[in-house]
Amino acid sequence: MKIDLNSDLGEGFGRWKSGDDETLMKIISSANVACGYHAGDAVIMHRMVEVAKENKVALGAHVGLPDLLGFGRIPMDIKPRDMQKHALYQLGALAAIAQVGGYKVTHASSHGAMGQMGIANPEYVELLFDVFKAFDKDIIVAPQPGSHGMAYAKKIGLRTACKIFADRAYDDNCRLVNRRLPGALITETADVVARIDQLMNDGTITAQSGKRMKVDAQCILVHSDTPGAVEIARTVREAVESRGGQIVPLTELAS
Amino acid sequence: MKIDLNSDLGEGFGRWKSGDDETLMKIISSANVACGYHAGDAVIMHRMVEVAKENKVALGAHVGLPDLLGFGRIPMDIKPRDMQKHALYQLGALAAIAQVGGYKVTHASSHGAMGQMGIANPEYVELLFDVFKAFDKDIIVAPQPGSHGMAYAKKIGLRTACKIFADRAYDDNCRLVNRRLPGALITETADVVARIDQLMNDGTITAQSGKRMKVDAQCILVHSDTPGAVEIARTVREAVESRGGQIVPLTELAS
Amino acid sequence: MKIDLNSDLGEGFGRWKSGDDETLMKIISSANVACGYHAGDAVIMHRMVEVAKENKVALGAHVGLPDLLGFGRIPMDIKPRDMQKHALYQLGALAAIAQVGGYKVTHASSHGAMGQMGIANPEYVELLFDVFKAFDKDIIVAPQPGSHGMAYAKKIGLRTACKIFADRAYDDNCRLVNRRLPGALITETADVVARIDQLMNDGTITAQSGKRMKVDAQCILVHSDTPGAVEIARTVREAVESRGGQIVPLTELAS
Amino acid sequence: MKIDLNSDLGEGFGRWKSGDDETLMKIISSANVACGYHAGDAVIMHRMVEVAKENKVALGAHVGLPDLLGFGRIPMDIKPRDMQKHALYQLGALAAIAQVGGYKVTHASSHGAMGQMGIANPEYVELLFDVFKAFDKDIIVAPQPGSHGMAYAKKIGLRTACKIFADRAYDDNCRLVNRRLPGALITETADVVARIDQLMNDGTITAQSGKRMKVDAQCILVHSDTPGAVEIARTVREAVESRGGQIVPLTELAS
Repeated sequence: MKIDLNSDLGEGFGRWKSGDDETLMKIISSANVACGYHAGDAVIMHRMVEVAKENKVALGAHVGLPDLLGFGRIPMDIKPRDMQKHALYQLGALAAIAQVGGYKVTHASSHGAMGQMGIANPEYVELLFDVFKAFDKDIIVAPQPGSHGMAYAKKIGLRTACKIFADRAYDDNCRLVNRRLPGALITETADVVARIDQLMNDGTITAQSGKRMKVDAQCILVHSDTPGAVEIARTVREAVESRGGQIVPLTELAS
Repeated sequence: MKIDLNSDLGEGFGRWKSGDDETLMKIISSANVACGYHAGDAVIMHRMVEVAKENKVALGAHVGLPDLLGFGRIPMDIKPRDMQKHALYQLGALAAIAQVGGYKVTHASSHGAMGQMGIANPEYVELLFDVFKAFDKDIIVAPQPGSHGMAYAKKIGLRTACKIFADRAYDDNCRLVNRRLPGALITETADVVARIDQLMNDGTITAQSGKRMKVDAQCILVHSDTPGAVEIARTVREAVESRGGQIVPLTELAS
Repeated sequence: MKIDLNSDLGEGFGRWKSGDDETLMKIISSANVACGYHAGDAVIMHRMVEVAKENKVALGAHVGLPDLLGFGRIPMDIKPRDMQKHALYQLGALAAIAQVGGYKVTHASSHGAMGQMGIANPEYVELLFDVFKAFDKDIIVAPQPGSHGMAYAKKIGLRTACKIFADRAYDDNCRLVNRRLPGALITETADVVARIDQLMNDGTITAQSGKRMKVDAQCILVHSDTPGAVEIARTVREAVESRGGQIVPLTELAS
Repeated sequence: MKIDLNSDLGEGFGRWKSGDDETLMKIISSANVACGYHAGDAVIMHRMVEVAKENKVALGAHVGLPDLLGFGRIPMDIKPRDMQKHALYQLGALAAIAQVGGYKVTHASSHGAMGQMGIANPEYVELLFDVFKAFDKDIIVAPQPGSHGMAYAKKIGLRTACKIFADRAYDDNCRLVNRRLPGALITETADVVARIDQLMNDGTITAQSGKRMKVDAQCILVHSDTPGAVEIARTVREAVESRGGQIVPLTELAS
């Protein structure tokens, strides 16, 4: 079993750092790099490209809302077609930095509230995937299981992998439990390991209610900005490898 | 005689407009489009790409300092290599928007204080041209006559055109007179026409002191944000055409 | 009959201008000055304070969402208590500039989406008025007729005036018709004059449906950023004065 | 001997944190709070006011350049009178938050490059102190020993204390050694303690060259954003107290 271990990186700005990006790059196999809207700047992006390349980590653009103060986590009633243009701007900026650095953006995803908005309003995710494809027909997206994004990506012929979160609770519709609700964040390493175990055993994850749900996951996301992120990432990697699995970049898994 | 008529466009932000970009696009032959740092945003950039394409205007990235409040006109003691990364970020963003819009960025230039900093410190202009070339070896730059930028561009094998300003005074070293000094801005249409006349007659311009200087100019810049910008642009176009010249995009002139 | 003629001013940013603030200051009697979040900056605010003082125009803080790109017109799901802190920040900034300039902020209001959010969620407007009062118990607010804001302001003992818009359509609940709907903006001078006429005759305005509604308006807002704003403001002033009314600052009218 | 222990706090932005502000507030006696330009935002400022009040820490406005990306550390050729307006904006914002929180801004200082610019060009520091005084004639400033700022503050009748840095090297003119030069930052706790010792013994500090210089210091600054900042602050506090000194707020020391 091959799994991509994915994380959101480059989430600092100017002098501010977020997680321990450079250590995580040695553990994970694909990175979603912030592109200057909700976090990140040209200098940080450049460094992320360098480190991703050194570690053969698949490089993705993590596009977000134009809201540095709110870290792109505040839903904004922005026009869908404006959002699309902002997403392309960010993707192009990272792609250029990658290209000059001798590397390549091979996947793209939306951050924070932009993702949530795409769940509430399919137009957001459709326009987003349309513009990703228009920019690079080979780009990979990794929507969540059973999402409209997954269906739409397949419909327009984008390469996809299915992504689940190692450290977030799910509801019975296989959607993430809202961050503000109790139990939404999984902080016990043992619980993270149990999820990996179960996923590798029978391809299921368990919702907060106890319901088991089949997911065809190729990609596991761990957060970079929580305390203990490096340890959680290492734990997931070891859990996969100790069960005979292999951590490989998203580019080797997407179909 | 073929001349490129060039202007800085897309210098609004969000709800704010600067010049009458859409009318100017019908008159000029190449546009330097602001890329979101000193002015411009993804929505405006997208529109500029559309209109440039419609009017067959050569599209350029006008990269600037990260200073929206100061419109990129305030020199900042930013590290040259950081400036280089910010420039690439902007160029990549516009290139992506152009590509998806079925068009192409064919030239690039620096705005405001970034340009001045490149005069004071050659490292800025060298790093800038290096990164332009690394992104696209065929990209065109249009430095001022006799500048270090021109020499360096030729040295590294960038395609170049020589640019002069229709509406700015020059000193005896063929440098622009500082904007804050008296007479720096040429506002009389007759003076602009006289400059074009002279340029087409004998290939010279006259400095503030009265000194005549030989310039091998292929590209004439008119500002978009001054009152009467549209009229000045029309006047320049007519002056060139009535003397048997032809206005053509930068891409047809650069060597 | 005494009426305050009110307008939103200082809505530029850096090099960008919005309306003809300086001319409008000679016509109106109270100004809502942008405070750097949705528009405005310290330099513009300083100038607005000077010109308001020169013209004896009542000075208000026009606080907005932290969204320069969207001009504060995009609803954001910001926490109400964060919004409250941002409002206070802006009010304090303008109050300091006014104080040092020998003038005073005497009223405050919310701009764009912050106002809309206060209609959808009373907590926003309550927290806003609470913090205005905590900063200055004598500050004036000018909510719309019949609004929750008006009721709440009276309840907590804030000085109030009732504000209507000269150039916007109303629905049958005396709420503004959404800007994006047809007929929302009144652009014919004759229609603006008719509204003033009617208001001065019998204290009513007419909704889009034709319904006449009684309003106890002391304050009439004209926009500064529409084409013809200066002319509309002059027209309103003349309409009031020619019917024997008097334009006076908000400070003389609030109860 | 009474000493004020001072630190720059509130240097986060949105989701980003800088130092351990809340712990430091229990150790220091005066805080310079970032006001939203180089760092800080209304929510963080509000929290800093609360914690300063709880710990009876003297509250200061730490005003900076409008450059979040560069953390206000990049010199900008901004017009002195614009800088003055930006400083007042920031001071007013914090003063309002303090007032509503039942506390008060009692001192003010400039951050990073704004401070450096004031050394290179006296006009900056003069306009800054002028506007601090115009806003609040009782406000305290804490310039460095022998600086033009100190002389000017005394000339215009501002209350002053003299500030030295616990963790920065000095040159023979009692100016800070540039951050980028070797040895500029003192990182060994023993060296910090030695400086305090010497200061309390004979009122001198030693320059990098070995030269001893008399300084009449009432205020010692420790940085909040270096690793080990809390420990350094505690060390300084203990060094002062163990030698019979007393840590008291700036407000009790300024003359």
